[in-house]
Amino acid sequence: MKSRIVTVGLRPGYYSGMKLSDLDTPCLVLDRTRLRRNIEAMNDRMEVHGVAFRPHVKTAKCLEVVRMIRAGKTGPITVSTLLEAEYFCADGFDDILYAVSIVPAKLPRVKKLLDSGCDLKLILDNADIALQVAAAGVELGVTFRVLIEIDCDGHRAGLAPDDPATAGLAKLLQAQAGVEFMGFMTHAGESYSCTSIDQIRQYAALEVKAIIESVGVVSAAAIDIPIRSVGSTPTATFAEDLQGISEVRAGVYVFQDLYQVGLGVCKREDIALSVLTTVISHKPGQNRLLVDAGGLALSKDHSTAAQTMDCGYGLVCEAQSGEVISGLVVDSANQEHGMITALDRQIDFARFPIGSQLRILPNHACMTAAAHDRYHVIAGDDTIRDRWFRCNGW
Amino acid sequence: MKSRIVTVGLRPGYYSGMKLSDLDTPCLVLDRTRLRRNIEAMNDRMEVHGVAFRPHVKTAKCLEVVRMIRAGKTGPITVSTLLEAEYFCADGFDDILYAVSIVPAKLPRVKKLLDSGCDLKLILDNADIALQVAAAGVELGVTFRVLIEIDCDGHRAGLAPDDPATAGLAKLLQAQAGVEFMGFMTHAGESYSCTSIDQIRQYAALEVKAIIESVGVVSAAAIDIPIRSVGSTPTATFAEDLQGISEVRAGVYVFQDLYQVGLGVCKREDIALSVLTTVISHKPGQNRLLVDAGGLALSKDHSTAAQTMDCGYGLVCEAQSGEVISGLVVDSANQEHGMITALDRQIDFARFPIGSQLRILPNHACMTAAAHDRYHVIAGDDTIRDRWFRCNGW
Repeated sequence: MKSRIVTVGLRPGYYSGMKLSDLDTPCLVLDRTRLRRNIEAMNDRMEVHGVAFRPHVKTAKCLEVVRMIRAGKTGPITVSTLLEAEYFCADGFDDILYAVSIVPAKLPRVKKLLDSGCDLKLILDNADIALQVAAAGVELGVTFRVLIEIDCDGHRAGLAPDDPATAGLAKLLQAQAGVEFMGFMTHAGESYSCTSIDQIRQYAALEVKAIIESVGVVSAAAIDIPIRSVGSTPTATFAEDLQGISEVRAGVYVFQDLYQVGLGVCKREDIALSVLTTVISHKPGQNRLLVDAGGLALSKDHSTAAQTMDCGYGLVCEAQSGEVISGLVVDSANQEHGMITALDRQIDFARFPIGSQLRILPNHACMTAAAHDRYHVIAGDDTIRDRWFRCNGW
Repeated sequence: MKSRIVTVGLRPGYYSGMKLSDLDTPCLVLDRTRLRRNIEAMNDRMEVHGVAFRPHVKTAKCLEVVRMIRAGKTGPITVSTLLEAEYFCADGFDDILYAVSIVPAKLPRVKKLLDSGCDLKLILDNADIALQVAAAGVELGVTFRVLIEIDCDGHRAGLAPDDPATAGLAKLLQAQAGVEFMGFMTHAGESYSCTSIDQIRQYAALEVKAIIESVGVVSAAAIDIPIRSVGSTPTATFAEDLQGISEVRAGVYVFQDLYQVGLGVCKREDIALSVLTTVISHKPGQNRLLVDAGGLALSKDHSTAAQTMDCGYGLVCEAQSGEVISGLVVDSANQEHGMITALDRQIDFARFPIGSQLRILPNHACMTAAAHDRYHVIAGDDTIRDRWFRCNGW
């Protein structure tokens, strides 16, 4: 019952000569120039560290973006849904880590992936489930490759490295038929709460320490544990020492967003994703512009409210240049209405006539992109270069 | 460049004999029994008032739901996107109000709808745009039917009834070729901030008063203004006197949600929509269950935070019966992880083994449904009766 991926073909040259002003709004705009810069910066960091990189495709969910990361070659990826695994595997990305705890009901779909040649790795943090996965492997005649999720910061799932259950689970996985123990992974989700780069560096070190400790409880030689995986965009950006780690994961860095700006991970000029919208009403008495990008097109993610700069539901840019218009913020969002106000002045309404376009930078690129089925690709100006599709759903 | 609607055919009987426990999670579950009850209650209210009903399809975006409202016949509807207009018109719902301010760039797509036989009505609140719409009508050889949006409560778009611009705009629309003035519409969005039923009744009265005043500025006889449209789920539910009104709009009432419960519009047992999810990890030290419905499957809408009962990102129910499990709430949501805690006690983890299913009631049904492409339809028990598709996008 998986969702079906349908890519509707349009005639070649469909976007030929089109500008942002020709697009129906609201829609997603992706600046390929900024995207490439973000991708190259992270690839360079990984090369300096001499560590393998397993990008998380959950943000873009887009073949073209991952192909750009890999410079046209294949390579390891991380996914957040089995649909992503199916979608990317069909394109040749067959070394996949499914980074959400597996449950038995999902194993028949995993088996189909394995049968199709996908080297899909699963994660779990519980002995009962490990036994069920092993039994299912035996019953289905496959070997499920499994990592143990390690909790390095109390943020989400996983076992603590020094929890006796960690060693017990590793031994259980090593002993059972139907499964193959592949290593450990952790994700410092708490790095998203940092208020300084130093703090992010500490979380990066915490990820590494948690994995090395976990390896230590099952083996004297780290090399016996093939996958020792860490990462998040903040920690991958600022990690100083990745000794003992076999691979790094990061996702949102490809697009960046206002939350990452607030963390100090990037600058506004690095944000590659925006929502193109049209001014639909003026409310001078309330000092408000209304636009046709509301809670669906922008998402209701208001995560920057917890940061020094509350960006509401997004900051406002000139449509053509993508330059931020200082002080304009989407302060409220109904389903198909976004309400823009100026934080520090009366809006110059004549500058934003009804019918004119703006772009909105997202708080959280993963959430904003998810309401849309495609990206309209630009390259630093307002000409549409391409359109790339997403694999939404589960 | 509108989104393409693709309905993938499955063999008949695909869901025959299937139970909720057979579904991949996360996914949407729609209880047809509750849905029908909500629909009948609103239809009955409108019949008592003797007023026409123009349901807003933006919540369900689903043909089967609107067919149920109309008992298999066609009839007037309200839409929030042109894609909804195209989708529903193709199914015979050709009397449509597009309830988001029109901008000139969308008129070619509107013309296509008119050419296909759709009686699509537009709204606006600005004289410059009215002139542009009129000019486009003349140029394209069509007559755009237009309502003026009235702002009854300062919530969103629209002109105040006593604003001289309101009378001016009506006269302009009556005088111009290329447009036909059809009347007034208003929406008391502020009814969502009410803290008592009495207050909701006052907003319902405010909607009616705003429309009657607006009619008064252009005509001595209300009958000369064919469309006098009011509504929201709260005000449609509690309106006492709809004299002078030609039609009522409401959307979310079909599913209801926790926000409407908080307003006093419905009871929890009326909520027809839920997200089916699977327990994927236990964190006893944090008194947390992790599930595979996160911010994408549930949405990041946290609107109940402003109400007496903060429901986090949703309340938790037994999967099979749909009964609320007292005190369990989704208190945090990452992209594909929901974190459930108990507000008042230590969770009994043995009752919720990893791999077991739960259902989550949404804060805001419109936002939660939007991440999913289909509903799995049940009827009071855990048997899958049908699956109905949505028209997402713009």
